[in-house]
Amino acid sequence: MKIAIDAMGGDHGLSPIVEGSMQALKELDAELILVGQEDPIRAELDRLKWTDSRLTIQHASQTVEMHESPAQVARKKRDSSIWVATKMVKDGAADGVVSAGNTGATMVSAFFQLGMIKGVERPAICAMLPTLQGTAVMLDVGATVDCTARQLYQFGIMGHEYGKHLLGKANPRVGLLSIGEEDTKGNDMTKEAFRLLRESPLNFIGNLEGREVYSGNADVIVCDGFLGNVSLKISEGLADAMKKMLMREVMASRLGRLSFLFITGPLMRLRRRTDYAEFGGAPLLGVNGISMICHGRSSAKAIKNAILRAEALAKGRLIDLIQRDIAESLMTPTDPQMA
Amino acid sequence: MKIAIDAMGGDHGLSPIVEGSMQALKELDAELILVGQEDPIRAELDRLKWTDSRLTIQHASQTVEMHESPAQVARKKRDSSIWVATKMVKDGAADGVVSAGNTGATMVSAFFQLGMIKGVERPAICAMLPTLQGTAVMLDVGATVDCTARQLYQFGIMGHEYGKHLLGKANPRVGLLSIGEEDTKGNDMTKEAFRLLRESPLNFIGNLEGREVYSGNADVIVCDGFLGNVSLKISEGLADAMKKMLMREVMASRLGRLSFLFITGPLMRLRRRTDYAEFGGAPLLGVNGISMICHGRSSAKAIKNAILRAEALAKGRLIDLIQRDIAESLMTPTDPQMA
Repeated sequence: MKIAIDAMGGDHGLSPIVEGSMQALKELDAELILVGQEDPIRAELDRLKWTDSRLTIQHASQTVEMHESPAQVARKKRDSSIWVATKMVKDGAADGVVSAGNTGATMVSAFFQLGMIKGVERPAICAMLPTLQGTAVMLDVGATVDCTARQLYQFGIMGHEYGKHLLGKANPRVGLLSIGEEDTKGNDMTKEAFRLLRESPLNFIGNLEGREVYSGNADVIVCDGFLGNVSLKISEGLADAMKKMLMREVMASRLGRLSFLFITGPLMRLRRRTDYAEFGGAPLLGVNGISMICHGRSSAKAIKNAILRAEALAKGRLIDLIQRDIAESLMTPTDPQMA
Repeated sequence: MKIAIDAMGGDHGLSPIVEGSMQALKELDAELILVGQEDPIRAELDRLKWTDSRLTIQHASQTVEMHESPAQVARKKRDSSIWVATKMVKDGAADGVVSAGNTGATMVSAFFQLGMIKGVERPAICAMLPTLQGTAVMLDVGATVDCTARQLYQFGIMGHEYGKHLLGKANPRVGLLSIGEEDTKGNDMTKEAFRLLRESPLNFIGNLEGREVYSGNADVIVCDGFLGNVSLKISEGLADAMKKMLMREVMASRLGRLSFLFITGPLMRLRRRTDYAEFGGAPLLGVNGISMICHGRSSAKAIKNAILRAEALAKGRLIDLIQRDIAESLMTPTDPQMA
């Protein structure tokens, strides 16, 4: 297995990406290709005294900044690290790509170069969430903001395969994020998606209210990219706000300040449980190749985990499994349009 | 001022509603009418040894259960407590109605009997959220699940007036819940709503990412009823899950268990800061009368606060202010359709 890594992406420069790659190689029998400007990458490898020949460099002269318009990448940045790294997957020179850079640019690179899996209409970013019962996946969290019911249904299929792979469950419970449990609840789009999912062979458990996202009642949570993205970011913001409010309360009284000594341990462990770095990147599902999107703020550990996951997804032939399921769904006349 | 109270609504029976009404009268120069089955209400008042003549009973023979279809209310439950209480507002016998019963039934009662404020297309439930800087309002959180851009714009106008009233700010900051700060980010509906809001006289601060909801960067957060409802319930679920995860961590070690003694105070104060009961109900804005929707689990304190707020909204002539702003917006040619 070979994984291409966008070395120029991420908010913290080269170091966490190079270090994460080195850490991954300690756990992995694979080749990693750092894609980006050769001189600074080589300098970083020298600094870290790295000699393992399984880590190579593929030069790419351009970079894509975080604020740049993704649309520009396909036209003006064809020698950028993310474009070149994705091209290696297209050309068969790599089995997957990992990037902590501009998310839009990563999506555009994958969409234009890898294309879609046959039959899949739109891509979906599949994030992981900690729940009271373990881990769940949610898709889409930002790739496709305007969805149709049929696309939501396809997200369910892709989430099913990814959930199976990730959670090790034979038949993951798929829920549709909505505003009430009854099938009559929802907006026009989710009501139609409910019908398609119910008639599918998926283990569909029905509508899922917002309250149930973190309870762990579902393994796979289906929603459009607009709702998913807002949901994820509200969760991040609320978790931060709650920690700050709790700390304010703790610090506001002498007894509270005393508790600080004791609560630091539990708070740190909670932080670890809800830390995205523990999870590593989120795959862009639906494109015809493995593309892992990492948080811009990714640590070396997050990069390492994303590389391990990309390798596992490639080895597990996730793309083939999704392609098979989608082909079957297109043969099943659950929807007159889909027959 | 006279406020009609749906005495038969809520998950905890009559007691919190009657007690909340009694508490409200201690702080309020107003008349309250408990609407519902006379015998049990009178028995409850006797039990609590209440004699103040400002609290009266209006008999209504029917009740609406929490699980009942709201659509039935208008047809088969015209002598239900919520229908009769809302009718009192319509007939001028009360200045506002408060209910902790079936939310859908409360909306249907208001929609059919009070009608809409002239020019307002759809109603919005306006919830309050605690933020790091104080309080914000969010609308819609569940009345209108399929929205147009123009309806979102009208929610901005209604939120502006309610935010002014509630937060005491001359010109509340209005933000549009979306997936990025730039005006090019969002789905088709929010991009069009962005344009309408930017060209309006509102203090529009642009798109608001999910992360910013609890930071307090905006006073009024505009979204459709589907997104708002999911957002609110995800927040409730995550707050619960975080408390549970923290408690598990605290209880998992001896040092942690020791901290329990010290952290109880701060946790209780945090709970109070984020407790919906402190806020009292959420108004159904857009209908032509004051209608306050309370959580089914409302405590006496939550009911009291909702009554105080209903009285304040009626006194502040919120309906007239919204009507004036909407009329002005219809005269301003920000949108060819609206000219």
